[in-house]
Amino acid sequence: MRTLASAVASKTDQEVELSGWIHRVRDLGGISFVLLRDRSGIVQLVYDGKAEYTLESVVTVRGRVQVNDKAPGGYEVRVADTELLAAAEPDLPISVNQDPESIGIEAILDNRIISLRNPKILDVFRLQAGIVQYFAEYMRSRDFTEIKSSKLIGTGTEGGTGLFAVEYFESKVFLAQSPQFYKQAMVASGLERVFEIGAAYRAEKHDTPRHLNEYVSLDVEMAFIDDENDLMDLEVGILQHIFAGIARDHARILSEWDQTVPTPEQVAKIPRISHDDAKKIASERLGKRLFEINPEVERVVCDWAAEEHGVEAAFVYGFPRKKRPFYTFPEGLKTKSFDLLFRGLEITTGGKRINEYAMLLETLPKFKLTEEELGDYCTIFRYGCPPHGGFAIGLERLTQKILGLHNVKEASLFPRDRKRVRP
Amino acid sequence: MRTLASAVASKTDQEVELSGWIHRVRDLGGISFVLLRDRSGIVQLVYDGKAEYTLESVVTVRGRVQVNDKAPGGYEVRVADTELLAAAEPDLPISVNQDPESIGIEAILDNRIISLRNPKILDVFRLQAGIVQYFAEYMRSRDFTEIKSSKLIGTGTEGGTGLFAVEYFESKVFLAQSPQFYKQAMVASGLERVFEIGAAYRAEKHDTPRHLNEYVSLDVEMAFIDDENDLMDLEVGILQHIFAGIARDHARILSEWDQTVPTPEQVAKIPRISHDDAKKIASERLGKRLFEINPEVERVVCDWAAEEHGVEAAFVYGFPRKKRPFYTFPEGLKTKSFDLLFRGLEITTGGKRINEYAMLLETLPKFKLTEEELGDYCTIFRYGCPPHGGFAIGLERLTQKILGLHNVKEASLFPRDRKRVRP
Repeated sequence: MRTLASAVASKTDQEVELSGWIHRVRDLGGISFVLLRDRSGIVQLVYDGKAEYTLESVVTVRGRVQVNDKAPGGYEVRVADTELLAAAEPDLPISVNQDPESIGIEAILDNRIISLRNPKILDVFRLQAGIVQYFAEYMRSRDFTEIKSSKLIGTGTEGGTGLFAVEYFESKVFLAQSPQFYKQAMVASGLERVFEIGAAYRAEKHDTPRHLNEYVSLDVEMAFIDDENDLMDLEVGILQHIFAGIARDHARILSEWDQTVPTPEQVAKIPRISHDDAKKIASERLGKRLFEINPEVERVVCDWAAEEHGVEAAFVYGFPRKKRPFYTFPEGLKTKSFDLLFRGLEITTGGKRINEYAMLLETLPKFKLTEEELGDYCTIFRYGCPPHGGFAIGLERLTQKILGLHNVKEASLFPRDRKRVRP
Repeated sequence: MRTLASAVASKTDQEVELSGWIHRVRDLGGISFVLLRDRSGIVQLVYDGKAEYTLESVVTVRGRVQVNDKAPGGYEVRVADTELLAAAEPDLPISVNQDPESIGIEAILDNRIISLRNPKILDVFRLQAGIVQYFAEYMRSRDFTEIKSSKLIGTGTEGGTGLFAVEYFESKVFLAQSPQFYKQAMVASGLERVFEIGAAYRAEKHDTPRHLNEYVSLDVEMAFIDDENDLMDLEVGILQHIFAGIARDHARILSEWDQTVPTPEQVAKIPRISHDDAKKIASERLGKRLFEINPEVERVVCDWAAEEHGVEAAFVYGFPRKKRPFYTFPEGLKTKSFDLLFRGLEITTGGKRINEYAMLLETLPKFKLTEEELGDYCTIFRYGCPPHGGFAIGLERLTQKILGLHNVKEASLFPRDRKRVRP
């Protein structure tokens, strides 16, 4: 009967069986100390003489638990018997048991199979799994239904550029940039409130610390809203729930990465400023005139929010019409749309959508689009679609900003960028 | 303040505001009865005179709730005021308010945007959302971590055939047939127990009622197992939890589709029979010699299990080595693998995997594979991988069999097959 590393402390003087990876070996001549790593943590093993195991080998050991104040966690296991389940070759390409800060990002990503074994790196994805869990929990608590839409689409709803083409039997299709079309269809189907957790693809050539060509999108769409404030209210609730879950379940990981998450009170105070005001704030702070919300402006606006509102985040609403996709609900030259900036990075784009068929038909020519090009999309609106809107949160960007990672690729298990398609 | 259709019964003689779709209109001369549909259900509205709204138009109405034994649910709303939010064109391509049995599957799928509005069809996806929820709940309760792996892969782990090619900048990559490589990597990373809910792609040309070219795979992988029986035990627990959740939360949908789910006791009794015995049972019942587990055998074995064990499901283990992928743990000419057949259909394939590097290297030539071809895959095993195994449940197939759908495509929101890439 296996005991996890984390449970050793409750088994003083008992015989236990542990299984895991050889994390570190210290040979002190007559005695060896070995750190054994399993999914619950790390425990010290004590061997008489040499412990002849290569790092990362997988073993099952049996032995007696004893108190040792100098051991990690205050306990160690005096090993009586070791079974080697899988020997590791001795030529590990990168270290697993050192601070990942000492390894460059290229080496970390090139050797992803091994770098993910580093406990601090693996913790990024333990926390990320929490984000997915809390997001879904909250959406269900608000009567949202989870959907799974196709990622293979005939045409792009976002305009057709930036799409990866797929050879689909005799024809060509594209990888979806977002489930936009489908989540709107499902709102109009009668579900009214839907969410999706799925892959999204952008065939964009830029290779920056804030872009991935494949990412996980936490998508939300909701019917019978008045305007984009209903959506910002919803996102406040989502973020409060996600951050509270992380603070409760993943305090160890936050502390290890030397980070905190905003409290529910702080999230409630996220300011909502217009696109114009965001530019004005940034222009004043940077001492130069700014004409769009670029990454520099995103950082400055978050700094401003931290100082003025006590939270490193800001909703920016009222984006100009030409900056938003055709389906965005217009308001003069502006739109009923918003972004959420968090710790200097846009982590959400959303807005109210056009829901009336006549308004849609009137809008398409302005974007040089036709009903035919959009295929089945217009059917959603031709047959009765309620007022609605939605948004998407980038899972990797949110993870990155919670943990203070330098590059969004560090928040993707197996990132895809301009040059990287492996492992 | 909006009231949902399902809450009208608790508001007798009160003024309410309702929003939804015009589901049905009956004009009786001086009075009209209208059914209004929202995400919670259907409620009858009463209008003096004509109700001039096209089917599927979206409205907000205000009126008083009154008892009417003849109305659906026993209540109706006498409308004082109606606001038309979005008018539907009168040329609906297919009916939304009739039994979908009366509409052919081609018309249902060609007009998917509209057919999903049919409440009975939409219920398929309400129930499917439940399956996803219960699956994830159970996995977390057993200390499994959710992962999100890339769907863009350089090479196929399943042999390289049946892959869709993607034009990825200057190179060519493929859509993953399964997260096999990645879930094994994440087991070896130290997470030990992982699950993934994600899209899987098969570029197979057959167009049958049991195949989709894009489907949602509920994937599981677990370290430190003894053999495939540990995996079957785990799947029993998963199915018990999923079926119990459906019976608890979705009894209405089951009843509407005239179906039941197996009880936890029945799931516990699912027999485990060898591949040879499965063929023998089918051969006896069909009066002819059978040499493989084809769809006919799957049906007969489930009939046998229903008669002999009181549950329409059977685990079949011990598949021959040549029927399984290279990474399957061998046992002589057989393998430590299994399928789960449910109501005549294979819904799961799984097994113990090869975890020792030496055994993997010895196996590759037998499958005409080289370490180089498999790229980073072998790295998992070169540096210490524990004994492990896993399986995948096809979400659409499980949904199909729970509801007794004729075709698995009916269990996919936007199915992709040989010819269908829209909507």
